[in-house]
Amino acid sequence: MAGNKKHLLLLFDRPQEPCFMEKGPQRTVTPDYATDIPQIVSKFSSNAQETVSVNAVSTPSLGDILELKREENFSLFIPKHRKIAGRLIDIFLGVRNVDELLSVAIYARERVNPYLFNYSYSVALLHRPDTQDLDIPSIARYFPDKYVDSQVFSQARAVANIVPEESRTWKKKHRVAYFREDIGINLHHWHWHLVYPFEAARSVVDKNRRGELFYYMHEQIMARYNFERFSNNLKRVERFIDWDNPIKEAYFPKLDSLVASRSWPPRVANQRWQNLRREVDQIQVDIDDMKRWRDRIVDAIHAGVAKDANNRDVPLTENEGIDILGNMVESSILSPNRAFYGDLHNMGHVVTSYVHDPDHRHLESFGVIGDSTTAMRDPFFYRWHAYVDDIFQKFKETLPRYTVARLDYPGVTITDVQIQTEGGQKNVFQTFWQQSDMDLSRGMDFQPRGSVFVRFTHLQHSPFTYTINVNNEGKANRMGTCRIFLAPKFDEKGTPWMFRDQKNMFIELDKFRVTMKSGRNVITRRSTQSSVTIPFERTYRDLDTNRPQGGDQLAQFNFCGCGWPHNMLIPKGTAEGLQCELFVMISNYDDDRINQTIEGQCNDADSYCGIKDKLYPDRRSMGYPFDRMPRDGVQTLQQFLTRNMRVADVTIRFTNRTLRPKSGN
Amino acid sequence: MAGNKKHLLLLFDRPQEPCFMEKGPQRTVTPDYATDIPQIVSKFSSNAQETVSVNAVSTPSLGDILELKREENFSLFIPKHRKIAGRLIDIFLGVRNVDELLSVAIYARERVNPYLFNYSYSVALLHRPDTQDLDIPSIARYFPDKYVDSQVFSQARAVANIVPEESRTWKKKHRVAYFREDIGINLHHWHWHLVYPFEAARSVVDKNRRGELFYYMHEQIMARYNFERFSNNLKRVERFIDWDNPIKEAYFPKLDSLVASRSWPPRVANQRWQNLRREVDQIQVDIDDMKRWRDRIVDAIHAGVAKDANNRDVPLTENEGIDILGNMVESSILSPNRAFYGDLHNMGHVVTSYVHDPDHRHLESFGVIGDSTTAMRDPFFYRWHAYVDDIFQKFKETLPRYTVARLDYPGVTITDVQIQTEGGQKNVFQTFWQQSDMDLSRGMDFQPRGSVFVRFTHLQHSPFTYTINVNNEGKANRMGTCRIFLAPKFDEKGTPWMFRDQKNMFIELDKFRVTMKSGRNVITRRSTQSSVTIPFERTYRDLDTNRPQGGDQLAQFNFCGCGWPHNMLIPKGTAEGLQCELFVMISNYDDDRINQTIEGQCNDADSYCGIKDKLYPDRRSMGYPFDRMPRDGVQTLQQFLTRNMRVADVTIRFTNRTLRPKSGN
Repeated sequence: MAGNKKHLLLLFDRPQEPCFMEKGPQRTVTPDYATDIPQIVSKFSSNAQETVSVNAVSTPSLGDILELKREENFSLFIPKHRKIAGRLIDIFLGVRNVDELLSVAIYARERVNPYLFNYSYSVALLHRPDTQDLDIPSIARYFPDKYVDSQVFSQARAVANIVPEESRTWKKKHRVAYFREDIGINLHHWHWHLVYPFEAARSVVDKNRRGELFYYMHEQIMARYNFERFSNNLKRVERFIDWDNPIKEAYFPKLDSLVASRSWPPRVANQRWQNLRREVDQIQVDIDDMKRWRDRIVDAIHAGVAKDANNRDVPLTENEGIDILGNMVESSILSPNRAFYGDLHNMGHVVTSYVHDPDHRHLESFGVIGDSTTAMRDPFFYRWHAYVDDIFQKFKETLPRYTVARLDYPGVTITDVQIQTEGGQKNVFQTFWQQSDMDLSRGMDFQPRGSVFVRFTHLQHSPFTYTINVNNEGKANRMGTCRIFLAPKFDEKGTPWMFRDQKNMFIELDKFRVTMKSGRNVITRRSTQSSVTIPFERTYRDLDTNRPQGGDQLAQFNFCGCGWPHNMLIPKGTAEGLQCELFVMISNYDDDRINQTIEGQCNDADSYCGIKDKLYPDRRSMGYPFDRMPRDGVQTLQQFLTRNMRVADVTIRFTNRTLRPKSGN
Repeated sequence: MAGNKKHLLLLFDRPQEPCFMEKGPQRTVTPDYATDIPQIVSKFSSNAQETVSVNAVSTPSLGDILELKREENFSLFIPKHRKIAGRLIDIFLGVRNVDELLSVAIYARERVNPYLFNYSYSVALLHRPDTQDLDIPSIARYFPDKYVDSQVFSQARAVANIVPEESRTWKKKHRVAYFREDIGINLHHWHWHLVYPFEAARSVVDKNRRGELFYYMHEQIMARYNFERFSNNLKRVERFIDWDNPIKEAYFPKLDSLVASRSWPPRVANQRWQNLRREVDQIQVDIDDMKRWRDRIVDAIHAGVAKDANNRDVPLTENEGIDILGNMVESSILSPNRAFYGDLHNMGHVVTSYVHDPDHRHLESFGVIGDSTTAMRDPFFYRWHAYVDDIFQKFKETLPRYTVARLDYPGVTITDVQIQTEGGQKNVFQTFWQQSDMDLSRGMDFQPRGSVFVRFTHLQHSPFTYTINVNNEGKANRMGTCRIFLAPKFDEKGTPWMFRDQKNMFIELDKFRVTMKSGRNVITRRSTQSSVTIPFERTYRDLDTNRPQGGDQLAQFNFCGCGWPHNMLIPKGTAEGLQCELFVMISNYDDDRINQTIEGQCNDADSYCGIKDKLYPDRRSMGYPFDRMPRDGVQTLQQFLTRNMRVADVTIRFTNRTLRPKSGN
């Protein structure tokens, strides 16, 4: 990579340390041309193996970006924070070339809050044409405090100081609530919001079907969370619908913010939402505001039409309505009328995150649910998103049902579906624990150099292959989209589902294009090819030591990081085997097709993340065919099926064994 | 100091770092003969300027002392913790000489929880005959996390790593709630409990009048806290009397435990006491237990007699009753019947400290009120101790009133009392803010060596002198005890006090012996001589750089560290001048005298702390003459006075200015 471009990534390293301290494997130093004190810089330069010289540029005016102090916490949910993040993104997008970007970024890095810098700089690198090929590193490496129990750091610090790097065998075992605190899941959520900011320059926010994707991605998170609850003999999560009642769920994060040097405040049991009066955050929201926004949104749903700021009708159409509604509910700057429909979803996060200090009298910051990098750890995230999803379902209930004609693919019949697990039984998914190591050292400011690993234990499953037998009764080749979903076979009482309930339990496993020749076809597909996940290595690999060398392999890593972690593709299941239904459908590609060319990057998890700078690669409503109420007469999944669909009984069997880390990780 | 004795103090340094890392100004290393890995040790030895060689001894069996893990929090209020602390103290007290103590202490230090080690080792050094002359360093230097806002550490770590020691000008300003979070006040409280443990070998616990001193020291804390509340236009603190009602006070400590790598959990508003079921702490206490203990104690007060474990009468006599009651209420192992009278005061701390997680389902540790080093930060500390003090007052109400004969000193008349502030007005105390620096570096484990200062802003007052004119009408010299107290002149409604209420507002300023010649005497006394305080320098001075050289000066520092911080002797007062009454009494020394010789050490603050290994130096009931209800007919302080007492109207005037640190500090 030419010139200074590769140096851009060094600025993520050790976010609280000045640029003149060594960064990266080459111990590169990049003095801040504007302010550094020569005698101090030279102390560090002498250790460095590489020094980057930086061009002086006209320094940007940071203005109110500096109002967020360096040691404060940063949250996209806080309007004031979003606004200054948007400004900083614009600054980074506005400079002319890579050299200038490096200069401006160094200037900003030394002055701006480290979280704010990381977010805005990441968004800019993702969206600048000249930096698209950079592989944005995982935030977990630079802010491990958001993912790793605070006690780990104390021990890691001891190891870093006492034990010479070559003889470090210490690997701290880290216990997590395997779903809520999974590092890959939380990274996915962070990355999704990096790709789909709800406030920034309109060119950055206004992505194809972003509102609909907000609905669908979170609907899938809910389905997956409920699936895990079933795997643990828990019933589906209850919507948080009565906003005057106490929140019974407590949450104690056990995380320290290393930047803020504050632990994330816990929420004790039975706290109630309070009206917010936090001058420091420029937030003033009453629960009554929330209720008004909610009622106006539901009014729009049932009227089938929203109103824009000029009181003009914005019809909530069958195809585009969900996208508009997604932007209204979230809300993003694309909302047709943010003043009227408010900021419901975001403020639900904010109000909950300040439940311990609604008027700032205790000078407290927000809880984990107030930060998209950590929100999914909190059990209440799911109660809130169950509520938010219910609003979307209310809208979906108003839409025309899919007729048989809109589901069928005449002449295409699936005759058999099965999965085969590597080294296992037919139609049995195998799950277990696996350990993986992650290097904390790039996030441990002001510590000796050298890797310090933390060992995570997380869910994993054996690789498997789908085999689908399809009969194409036509004479010519036909194209179709193969859609694969999975749901529990029984509800929490052990009784078979009504379709209207089960449809919301389906998690998407894969979606891909197939070409069928005339006659019988056998389609096989490997689990690792899933359109919802990113490779396992993305979450845990060490950027420096495990980076693939050379062209093809490098390209393979050049996706955008958004995507469900592959190790969490299959829910945990149970020791006795959780009974599930695997649903496969092949829809008519003529009705699915989007005319565009994809260059093969950033589409690794397109079902949940879309494709960068492209249209969403499926013309159907997201969640199709489960996004509507069923046609008249359909009570069960079996009744719902057309010939181009098929259901197989499968089980997920969990074995309580723990695999050691893969060698090389 | 001979041989290894001075090395004993090095073990306090950097409590989480192993012994083989450099300690103290000489960068001394003391390898643990039992386990250290030679190649790692030699890395550190090469930097050291001094290496201590340690004799191998038969290693003590630590047994259940190791059940408290190194990264857990430690609290004397938790019975399991007290028990193992008592065992470790006994181990340290049991070894034969200083060399052996060093070996055993190093062995223990590398294995035992750092807080537990610090406490037990400190108690042992204070109580061993051969280490009495050691100056036990302030815990704030080794565990600054208990006293300093967590945000300070992040910045201190940056400074320690970036800035060469010789050019460190950074001094972090630290904001405190000036009374509750005053470092000297919290150190006093910690030190008091170090001198007066309530559970250890009986020889260590059973000190002269310890139960009474528990009552009196905390009664004085309450009087001082209420005085500060008056200085801030707040009314006296309300007792926490209804144990079923919510605690309205929230507290957010903003402290991290560096050992536990956990922040101290906050308490949000309106939490209720819960029955405790914490297997991990071996604590099982119901609020009903607390109520039973309370009722049995009050029954004993009103019956005038307690029952011991064999159901024998233990009369609560006029002079000794308060001492017995103090041990019952606290409770200490001296309680006449701990099974029956329970553990009321301690468990009040514990129940409150676990209000956020009473059954350990969230794996949380206790709040600050559960640790005597930090308890005084929490506003609820004062509500609880107001309740505890009320129990003692209930008992005091049953005692015979002081007759004039028991107050008067026939032939001794005080004719005038005044104070003169340096550079100020007569009878006006002057208060203001002062800054002082403290070196954090000995508590910052795994950081580069060299001082890192934090700058505290705390209350201070101008030095002043009492002048007391006394007429001795007799022919011969007379001896007396001069007792000086201060209280607000009006209650919170601005009306003059009833004596029965004002008596509980008096804070002791000084108590000293006087000899009066026949005729007129002018007694002068400097504020810095106070019998309740320890010198300002004790709290803030740097042990190494500011240590006085040579005999006399060294002796001056060899007190025991217990005592009210001198800068907090005078309450803050108000800008317009808080009107107060200064009370001076000279009592007949014949009734005060204790026959003992005092060698002049550890009596610096004897009014609140007693004298180490000696009898309490005043035969009167503690708090005399304000510890009883007034005799019949006495409604006001003026009516209470006998000729040997005098009251002067004084004011405390606060000026909102901040003095820079004294040079050399």
